Amino acid sequence: MSQHGVSGNPEPPIPTGSSSPKMKISPKLNRWSMGRALRSGGVKLDRPIRRTDNTHFRQATESNETEEDDKKTSAIDVEITAGKSIYLISDGTGWTAEHSVNAALGQFEDYSVNRGSSVNTHLFSWVEDEEKLIEIINQAAKEGAMCFYTLANPLMAKSAKQACDQCGVLSVDILGPIIEGIASHLGVSPSGLTRGAAGRVKTLNDAYFKRIEAIEFTIKQDDGTLPENLSKADIVLVGVSRTGKTPLSTYIAQKGYKVANVPFVMGVEPPRTLFDVEPRKVFALKIQLVVLQAIRRTRARTLGVDTQAENNYSGIDPVRKELDFASRIFAENPGWAVIDVTNKAIEETAAVILRLYHDGRDSTTSVPCISQRY
Amino acid sequence: MSQHGVSGNPEPPIPTGSSSPKMKISPKLNRWSMGRALRSGGVKLDRPIRRTDNTHFRQATESNETEEDDKKTSAIDVEITAGKSIYLISDGTGWTAEHSVNAALGQFEDYSVNRGSSVNTHLFSWVEDEEKLIEIINQAAKEGAMCFYTLANPLMAKSAKQACDQCGVLSVDILGPIIEGIASHLGVSPSGLTRGAAGRVKTLNDAYFKRIEAIEFTIKQDDGTLPENLSKADIVLVGVSRTGKTPLSTYIAQKGYKVANVPFVMGVEPPRTLFDVEPRKVFALKIQLVVLQAIRRTRARTLGVDTQAENNYSGIDPVRKELDFASRIFAENPGWAVIDVTNKAIEETAAVILRLYHDGRDSTTSVPCISQRY
Repeated sequence: MSQHGVSGNPEPPIPTGSSSPKMKISPKLNRWSMGRALRSGGVKLDRPIRRTDNTHFRQATESNETEEDDKKTSAIDVEITAGKSIYLISDGTGWTAEHSVNAALGQFEDYSVNRGSSVNTHLFSWVEDEEKLIEIINQAAKEGAMCFYTLANPLMAKSAKQACDQCGVLSVDILGPIIEGIASHLGVSPSGLTRGAAGRVKTLNDAYFKRIEAIEFTIKQDDGTLPENLSKADIVLVGVSRTGKTPLSTYIAQKGYKVANVPFVMGVEPPRTLFDVEPRKVFALKIQLVVLQAIRRTRARTLGVDTQAENNYSGIDPVRKELDFASRIFAENPGWAVIDVTNKAIEETAAVILRLYHDGRDSTTSVPCISQRY
Repeated sequence: MSQHGVSGNPEPPIPTGSSSPKMKISPKLNRWSMGRALRSGGVKLDRPIRRTDNTHFRQATESNETEEDDKKTSAIDVEITAGKSIYLISDGTGWTAEHSVNAALGQFEDYSVNRGSSVNTHLFSWVEDEEKLIEIINQAAKEGAMCFYTLANPLMAKSAKQACDQCGVLSVDILGPIIEGIASHLGVSPSGLTRGAAGRVKTLNDAYFKRIEAIEFTIKQDDGTLPENLSKADIVLVGVSRTGKTPLSTYIAQKGYKVANVPFVMGVEPPRTLFDVEPRKVFALKIQLVVLQAIRRTRARTLGVDTQAENNYSGIDPVRKELDFASRIFAENPGWAVIDVTNKAIEETAAVILRLYHDGRDSTTSVPCISQRY
């Protein structure tokens, strides 16, 4: 399983042209020919197919059906599913369902890695009428899929539960228990309004504009540009090339923080304005030498640079020297938090940084936390 | 409530220095004065305090304690909570809890908007030992908070449930039911491993690098730069200034798509390479005239431009002309999907775009969906 749970965004989508994991087999494609299809690498009945990359299925093993077998099933309209399916149904964007299920799938990495099985998720967003809802659930039943749903409209949530129960589809209401919990805690009823419904509060409020401003600031400040603006950043990331400064910056910016990043390059003095920034706002990214070297080698090959340039960029000695150079500057600035990004996902490093950023300011206990007000 | 549910990222954090929503009231602020404060609308016991802005609490009124009152309560160390609190506890990044609870809070906008009440969330991430867990839950009990948790470790989840029940703290397990559902569907047990645990699969896989590449591509392509690369984009956004191209691009890029955006400026011919892009990849953003004008006026004031420049940018005539100019180009390219972004949050528009992008390719039903494989 290539997906890593707990938080963050999903992995890149399946490329065009190879994204339908289900194949409908006509009655004419009988069991024998299905066996052929299996042998030739297409298809498995109700068992997932492992793809060696994003675009091709790996070969499945041969089978030895006889003509007799053929007769038994030739009239059956068989649907073959390449991998177990999970349906996500939302009357809004569907991102909550996607996010939560991705997180949970992180608990089943073994399923794909060691068993060679795969899981397909199908996200249905803006499902706002019952007819569409029932159609999707019927399809889930046919496909042997399970359903997760996040339906703000309580009538729709009730219908989803009933329809899934009737069709024998395993279902989990993701949003319902959370809404119920909050309703009980606040002592008020939920609005039941879907996203974008007329009664919902206007989206374009101050907080919204602040978030957009943060994103735009962050993009402009990427890669050490406009050092004169460093003082305006909430968070400044420093580190050598390929420590993830850019993706980290944009990820954190989405959460409403203005982020600037400054690359540390061997022998190049960082901009003086960096040292005027309040040290608790600066986060220094470190990474293990061999891991960085491997990442850089991949990068150099992707870029197609010549051997000389590749060696300068990803040779063990230049990489070590640059890391040492960065470490020295880190050491000269003991107020900077040094974060090890080795083998960490963007979401993980972001969580570490934001916890430190808020530490000592939000916490109501001795345990640090990030507080927000709504 | 400024937060809008179903999906997306949270609103910007509370600025430094004003982020602690809880005030500790000294024993000298006795019962009577608390009553006064309650009446005057400032401090409410177990009821939220409304802040007029992000940085200052509204003034509480004067008090006229008598010595008698003092005696009754002087020994009581009263804690007053400014707003109802929600604790989010995770043994990972905590983003799943934050995301889901934000989505659910979208159902309680009325609570803040019409009642002037607020909700505070406190996100505790990387809570990996029981002692810390119990400390947080005890604090929740003291503060009258409720708890949501996403604990991959089943023993920790069990402890959380028990501790909350014992302390009388309302609690909801967000991740547990989702993991159970998937386990039952796949017929395998969850690993129980927290994020970053030794047994978890390596983060830096192909999908991960692809996502980083998408983010970096997107940043480089922002605002019409490098038109020669438009053909390499998965998605191209076009629209006039302030239709949200940049935040939309980075949001979609986080999901692993390479996004380019091209601004349409009155009288300036878009780059020729735009018209070579496969039309189904191009999304044209439109917006209502008056809404755009208001957004631009705010923007111009933020930038502090002079009156002449402000009029050119946000005057009703120039804005209308520019929108007409863009509409004409949209009309000349009927293969482009035109998306109305008026009053839509970034997450919403992104959901609309990605559904269209995947339409007709992933769907197993007549209802469009976004499919992914793990």
